[in-house]
Amino acid sequence: MELSCPVPRAETERVLLGHGSGGQLMAELLGKVITPGLVAPGPAEDAALVPFGDGQAVLSTDTFVVTPRFFPGGDIGSLAVHGTVNDLAMRGATPVALCLAYVLEEGLPIDELARITASVAVAAHSAGVPVVTGDTKVVGRGAADGIYVTTTGLGAPLPGAEVSAARGRPGDVVLLSGPIGCHGTAILSAREDLGFDSEIRSDSQPLNRLVARMVAAAGPELHALRDPTRGGLASALNELAAASGVGIEIEEAALPVPPPVAAACELLGLDPLHVANEGCLVALVAPPAAGAVLAAMRDGPEAPDARVIGAVTAARAGRVTARTLVGSTRVVDMLVGEQLPRIC
Amino acid sequence: MELSCPVPRAETERVLLGHGSGGQLMAELLGKVITPGLVAPGPAEDAALVPFGDGQAVLSTDTFVVTPRFFPGGDIGSLAVHGTVNDLAMRGATPVALCLAYVLEEGLPIDELARITASVAVAAHSAGVPVVTGDTKVVGRGAADGIYVTTTGLGAPLPGAEVSAARGRPGDVVLLSGPIGCHGTAILSAREDLGFDSEIRSDSQPLNRLVARMVAAAGPELHALRDPTRGGLASALNELAAASGVGIEIEEAALPVPPPVAAACELLGLDPLHVANEGCLVALVAPPAAGAVLAAMRDGPEAPDARVIGAVTAARAGRVTARTLVGSTRVVDMLVGEQLPRIC
Repeated sequence: MELSCPVPRAETERVLLGHGSGGQLMAELLGKVITPGLVAPGPAEDAALVPFGDGQAVLSTDTFVVTPRFFPGGDIGSLAVHGTVNDLAMRGATPVALCLAYVLEEGLPIDELARITASVAVAAHSAGVPVVTGDTKVVGRGAADGIYVTTTGLGAPLPGAEVSAARGRPGDVVLLSGPIGCHGTAILSAREDLGFDSEIRSDSQPLNRLVARMVAAAGPELHALRDPTRGGLASALNELAAASGVGIEIEEAALPVPPPVAAACELLGLDPLHVANEGCLVALVAPPAAGAVLAAMRDGPEAPDARVIGAVTAARAGRVTARTLVGSTRVVDMLVGEQLPRIC
Repeated sequence: MELSCPVPRAETERVLLGHGSGGQLMAELLGKVITPGLVAPGPAEDAALVPFGDGQAVLSTDTFVVTPRFFPGGDIGSLAVHGTVNDLAMRGATPVALCLAYVLEEGLPIDELARITASVAVAAHSAGVPVVTGDTKVVGRGAADGIYVTTTGLGAPLPGAEVSAARGRPGDVVLLSGPIGCHGTAILSAREDLGFDSEIRSDSQPLNRLVARMVAAAGPELHALRDPTRGGLASALNELAAASGVGIEIEEAALPVPPPVAAACELLGLDPLHVANEGCLVALVAPPAAGAVLAAMRDGPEAPDARVIGAVTAARAGRVTARTLVGSTRVVDMLVGEQLPRIC
């Protein structure tokens, strides 16, 4: 029997920072308080498929509260565009339109608002998606922290795409598009002025064209996609394992952790598997298509270092395990509480 | 030449509460800082029409920051559903799906979150639209005020609808669906504990079925729709006049201001024409169809008191005037600054 420390009742009755972590606490809040009666039950996906006209539309929404607002490799504006474009892409959709909603704190310098808005425009243009409508609210000093940005994306399914978090199958190859840990350590470094700035930049980038190449290469043999944002690669893999009812085994030696990120994580006591990313993805692909998908991934600017990091198993369904450098096997858990608030 | 008081330069370089008013200051912020380079120029609409598949999709997004979170006639959850459903309706669209994004302040009682979420579910069900996806972020104490809710709606154009803020024509009849001033005075009363609570309730309600009846009755002769939310009826009419390049003349005697609202406005020094509404709409309709539209409006629970309040003129393009009770004519201006922050 698993023992856990008792949590004072009063604490459980209020929202905690950990409820926003992307980890287990958040899953509990969603499962017990928010989802019941609101959203039809189903596998946890980054975006929703909706019948529309004669076909289907894909929708995804995200609020961005990252602090600081400007960080190495991006800002809250570009991040808000990339985050939603990528959530659409993880469902096999190409972005068609973005909606933008601001909450501004009284006193925000207008020039910061202008810079962030320009960054939204550049990021949207570079991802090839128009911003079609928006909303602006202002709250008093102390009722927000500068600016919060909500982006909602409308997407159209890519022809041939059949991507779902629930479609992972035993034997699937697990692919990772690029290095992990950059976004979270860049934010932390910028926030705490730790001096990694020159070495670590957020990986924030749009992944829609990468996914289009992968779908073109594999069609329905591309089973599942996930971008390991809040909660990191560990949480993304656990969500895929749970939604597909399979086990996932990864090779620690295959994980691309840039040396400055590894050093920062060691200094800060973080596991790179739990650190947020904003510009990479993990894919579960049927073995016959894996080579073609890998080649398609590398054939573009987003994923020159794409690689195989593991395989899907029938055994240990719902669990993620890692073969360590010394040959043993360890369980890779979801992040439980809050590692780093306001990372996105 | 019009004189204006000099504004200290430093003040103009920061976001002010008045920038969120729905009035002139907000229009300036949007026009000078947010819209250029971001959204293609065009008439100010409540929702955007986007080419999608073989047809068109309609999108609208809004963040709700109302305080208090619970008020007579609704709460932030039901308001967030009605607000976005209504913005879709003002573009002649029926709601197909809603996205929901929360920003939660650490310390928010979980039971309030549960009540608000239940209210979202009830309001969405009653408007006949599913909530298909969402997002939850948590920020530290003092970085938000309890909960902010962003809803984004996907809509499908109603068959026969050709509704745009720019389609008002001289001669059009101006229709109003119901009493004005209820939402703003209800919020103010709840906020300041002024004791009007028993008499005044927000008019917050979904207007999608009302609009469907109007479109069915008039087709393309229903020219323009607007829900007079932030900035009130005065701002809504001014926006229609500006977008259509026409004048609008209303009869003060025809405006339905409930006596408790009139009393509250007198006490507080507010003009009911500037007070926010969340459950009524104003329509510009070609004269031959006006009778049928009025009958269709009254044939349902949303607008039993629908009425003619004025007419569209070729003269005084871009201006709204009111014939007063004593027979004189006055200009009805947009709200300039901030009358009542965080009204929605």
